[in-house]
Amino acid sequence: MIRTRLTDRLGLAHPVVSAPMARVAGGRLAAAVSGAGGLGLIGGGYGDPDWLRHELAQAGNARVGTGFISWKLAEAGAQGEALLEEVLSRDPALLFLSFGELGRFARMAQAAGVPVMAQVQDLAQARAAVQAGAIALVAQGTEAGGHGASRATLPLVPEVADMLAREAPEVLLLAAGGIADGRGLAASLMLGADGVLCGTAFWAAEEALVPEGQRRAAMAASGDATCRSSLWDVARGIDWPDQWNLRGMRTDFQDGYEGRLEALAADETARAEWLDAAARGDAQIAGPIVGEAIGLLRQIRPAATILETMIAEAAALLGGGWQRN
Amino acid sequence: MIRTRLTDRLGLAHPVVSAPMARVAGGRLAAAVSGAGGLGLIGGGYGDPDWLRHELAQAGNARVGTGFISWKLAEAGAQGEALLEEVLSRDPALLFLSFGELGRFARMAQAAGVPVMAQVQDLAQARAAVQAGAIALVAQGTEAGGHGASRATLPLVPEVADMLAREAPEVLLLAAGGIADGRGLAASLMLGADGVLCGTAFWAAEEALVPEGQRRAAMAASGDATCRSSLWDVARGIDWPDQWNLRGMRTDFQDGYEGRLEALAADETARAEWLDAAARGDAQIAGPIVGEAIGLLRQIRPAATILETMIAEAAALLGGGWQRN
Ligand SMILES: Cc1cc2nc3c(=O)[nH]c(=O)nc-3n(C[C@H](O)[C@H](O)[C@H](O)COP(=O)(O)O)c2cc1C
Ligand SMILES: Cc1cc2nc3c(=O)[nH]c(=O)nc-3n(C[C@H](O)[C@H](O)[C@H](O)COP(=O)(O)O)c2cc1C
Repeated sequence: MIRTRLTDRLGLAHPVVSAPMARVAGGRLAAAVSGAGGLGLIGGGYGDPDWLRHELAQAGNARVGTGFISWKLAEAGAQGEALLEEVLSRDPALLFLSFGELGRFARMAQAAGVPVMAQVQDLAQARAAVQAGAIALVAQGTEAGGHGASRATLPLVPEVADMLAREAPEVLLLAAGGIADGRGLAASLMLGADGVLCGTAFWAAEEALVPEGQRRAAMAASGDATCRSSLWDVARGIDWPDQWNLRGMRTDFQDGYEGRLEALAADETARAEWLDAAARGDAQIAGPIVGEAIGLLRQIRPAATILETMIAEAAALLGGGWQRN
Repeated sequence: MIRTRLTDRLGLAHPVVSAPMARVAGGRLAAAVSGAGGLGLIGGGYGDPDWLRHELAQAGNARVGTGFISWKLAEAGAQGEALLEEVLSRDPALLFLSFGELGRFARMAQAAGVPVMAQVQDLAQARAAVQAGAIALVAQGTEAGGHGASRATLPLVPEVADMLAREAPEVLLLAAGGIADGRGLAASLMLGADGVLCGTAFWAAEEALVPEGQRRAAMAASGDATCRSSLWDVARGIDWPDQWNLRGMRTDFQDGYEGRLEALAADETARAEWLDAAARGDAQIAGPIVGEAIGLLRQIRPAATILETMIAEAAALLGGGWQRN
């Protein structure tokens, strides 16, 4: 048992949250993580209402939260707000917001009595999230799978912790990026985090919505095989703001567009080839969206096993009776 | 007291090594770190014999090691080997090698009975360093100050630890990049490291050879203010291999050359302006060479105080009697 302010305040057995991975973290994964004593989040991502309703149903009665990509929700205007209202009306464990201005959405959540957890990549964003009333920040490092920025987890977490200690001591802090086992969890607690958010580790869960071919390729990979790039967004035609790009596994297809992503943007045929490969789970062309921590994962396991193993390993490292107040 | 395989094997009181920062880590800094129970390294860097002899003399009788940049030593040919022989003949605590093929230099050190510590940035380099007979690897993350590559410390260290456990369990492992206080040290031990190597933390030591203006600018900075770039090398006219670039504080001067460093390479006047600013310690133009951990440092202190504070903080976090075997 590892007790922290996060477990106390959110009523969890373990200080571990699974990331709201767009299209990958569905209801079954989130429910499995919550069922095992962590907190599972559904990846509302780009705001597809049908997918989200389906996955909320899959979660059944489990106490889970939902995540959205803030700039995308803003772009969706009234439709985005309607979807957010619908999600909030189901009384989720929390609303997770990342990548963009969160003020308006945070106020909607607060009005509905739903706590907000905000993912941030630097100090300026951390302060903005505190201002917006987030009860918890997730300090995400560049080693993370999926979208992110340039600061790394190990120095970012204590710097945000120092800022919170001075300016908003009641706000909780989670570490994210590169954490896939008990070593990463124990290290994060040392850095001053109240808990961790893991994406890649649960990407490798049985319950994750991941095509088989990508799974196999990733299980054999070192973290050295990942990189940050906008290739995924260009290939999918998603107009992400420049300040974030995506980490996943590098492929030969990608190397062919090194330094000339405009060429891919302009080439319908090449993009169709990539999208088709992604749908088939062909990891030779469409690299799996995973972080550096993929190098720490060797097998696909049930989410509960991943979580329990992580906790047992961290508890052993921390020694009996360890507790952060 | 924190005891690890590193303290046992190298006969240190504390599992902390100060980085061989080129031109910044002179004999006084290295001697102060060793004197306080860690291991101090002199930054032989680009291989300037006069500077190095002077700084070795400054270290007096203190037991310190010396670091070299491998590709630069190789480039220097017979002169480089002569300098290395000279250093080895003084029986240093160890030879630290980083950035390039180390085989030949490692063999020279072994012939002289001097142990080799090798800094690596990925798994392939880690395996090469083991092959070359290094007794300790330093797994360096992208958040580090100075030259480096793209993997981040938090996931790199446990992945290298797993590789060593399988392939070379007797080789020691240090974490580097982003570690500037007891939190980072304790976290690194959780990740499986036997100790840490710190650059930025000791850059901020009284004994470091750092111009006053750069010092002042850095003490006020967040880690957000740093970036990786080849600007420093282009400005100084050093032809570093593409696989590494440098982390330091971003400046307006630098932003002006974003994406067009060729223009700076071609502009003698601009480079002269930069070099002059660097010599003066003008941090508005020539950004201090520090890592993301600069955001954790607020004051210039004696190296011994930095080290002792780090140890006390880590020991408190780890709880009494913690020990890794
Ligand atoms: C496949 C995948 C999809 C992701 N999608 C999202 C997302 O839609 N929204 C979000 O806020 N973060 C997303 N992330 C990032 C996670 O929230 C988290 O920051 C990251 O996974 C943590 O690093 P780790 O992958 O090393 O555990 C995604 C991550 C992955 C691996
Ligand atoms: C000013 C400065 C100069 C450096 N010079 C060297 C060098 O000459 N050789 C080397 O191997 N590493 C050098 N490094 C990198 C360090 O060895 C080490 O990897 C790094 O400082 C660790 O990260 P940290 O700065 O976050 O502590 C330098 C670092 C700094 C900050």
